[in-house]
Amino acid sequence: MTDLKHISLFQNASKEFFDSCARLAHPHSFPKGKILFIHNDPAEYFYVINKGWVKLFCETLDGTQSTIDILSIGQIFGEDSMFEDNLYHYSAEIVEHADLIQIPISILRQEIENNSKMALSMLEFVSRQRRQKEKEIEHRVIQNAPQRIGCFLLRLIKNNTPQGQTVTIHLPYDKTLIASRLGMQPETFSRALSKLKQHTGIRIKGAMVELDDLRQLIDYSCIACSSERSCKSSKEC
Amino acid sequence: MTDLKHISLFQNASKEFFDSCARLAHPHSFPKGKILFIHNDPAEYFYVINKGWVKLFCETLDGTQSTIDILSIGQIFGEDSMFEDNLYHYSAEIVEHADLIQIPISILRQEIENNSKMALSMLEFVSRQRRQKEKEIEHRVIQNAPQRIGCFLLRLIKNNTPQGQTVTIHLPYDKTLIASRLGMQPETFSRALSKLKQHTGIRIKGAMVELDDLRQLIDYSCIACSSERSCKSSKEC
Repeated sequence: MTDLKHISLFQNASKEFFDSCARLAHPHSFPKGKILFIHNDPAEYFYVINKGWVKLFCETLDGTQSTIDILSIGQIFGEDSMFEDNLYHYSAEIVEHADLIQIPISILRQEIENNSKMALSMLEFVSRQRRQKEKEIEHRVIQNAPQRIGCFLLRLIKNNTPQGQTVTIHLPYDKTLIASRLGMQPETFSRALSKLKQHTGIRIKGAMVELDDLRQLIDYSCIACSSERSCKSSKEC
Repeated sequence: MTDLKHISLFQNASKEFFDSCARLAHPHSFPKGKILFIHNDPAEYFYVINKGWVKLFCETLDGTQSTIDILSIGQIFGEDSMFEDNLYHYSAEIVEHADLIQIPISILRQEIENNSKMALSMLEFVSRQRRQKEKEIEHRVIQNAPQRIGCFLLRLIKNNTPQGQTVTIHLPYDKTLIASRLGMQPETFSRALSKLKQHTGIRIKGAMVELDDLRQLIDYSCIACSSERSCKSSKEC
């Protein structure tokens, strides 16, 4: 089981919090396709991802989906229901076989109420998420579809990747999921990816993307973004 | 000067916080068009709006804008820079003559650090904003442009407005600003408004929108939204 102390959100959590987790948190494995909970279900637990991928989404009555996020190792979800009348405000689906730690939300709530440092950590965590959502909205207004794919790819690259030499990017999940994460129809995504290839010279081989120079991708995508600092050194993107 | 105690975010603030505000907060009036600060300026103050409208926006190097929000009386802005290395992460422009209270951010930060109830209020406040941003992204994926205008109009209607009778909605600011708030080009907005008229029978007279039955607007717009509870009773929209 992942040591919860390694999760950055919990770096200021108390011994009591970790003791409660040791008693009441449980590891669970879930197969691909499993719906963990749905929108408006009563929320008793939040989850820490040890392995795999989890999609958070909302759905209208006629089944049209909007993907909120696709999360992986070290990320948490479900905890925000404590601010939503203890109801999950999204659905969660396992999109790649996942090992999760299930923790009662009451433990986290208690810790936030009793430990001011933890409340501040949580505040920074939520504030960063809000900022990311704002950035996502900005990109949907200002960037075109190929630029948004370029931006997605840039965020997968390690901070210290040098410019001016060949770079390989591993796509984290399949292209249909990437399209849904970016709020695009599969056919829009496909067309946009072709345009991105033309403009930046990227090459796609299965789940690998190769490009000769990072600069081409940055020049193409980041011109339509208000962040002056590089994405790779910023918390914004 | 608006009593800060009436601002819901400050309902759990301490006497010390209000005493500091009484000493260090200052009212200011600003004319329409004034840029209060720009993205990446060092942030020393946050602002409470007493009167008028303030637009928060981001801008790319070539001047393309993305409107983050348009705020009015009782709302605050700039406080979130405390989580962004003390830099404003958006620009702020007065879009309708505004009376603001300017308060050092240090007072708020101190209050959050020292008063756990205030930290929790702030956490709920930021969490609600994050939720609203998520909803905004969902609407951009699922709703078409006329539905998004319909949704905007519905949020202007008082909670207890009865269905089945004529309703008048006052547009809060001009149509160009509404378009920018919704992330639409003016011509897209104009076409979408015409479609909305055809579908729901709304009538527009200057800054007034009239409709014979709220139900028509709800049926048309809310079908493309995952919120099961009515917007008017929900914190989501």
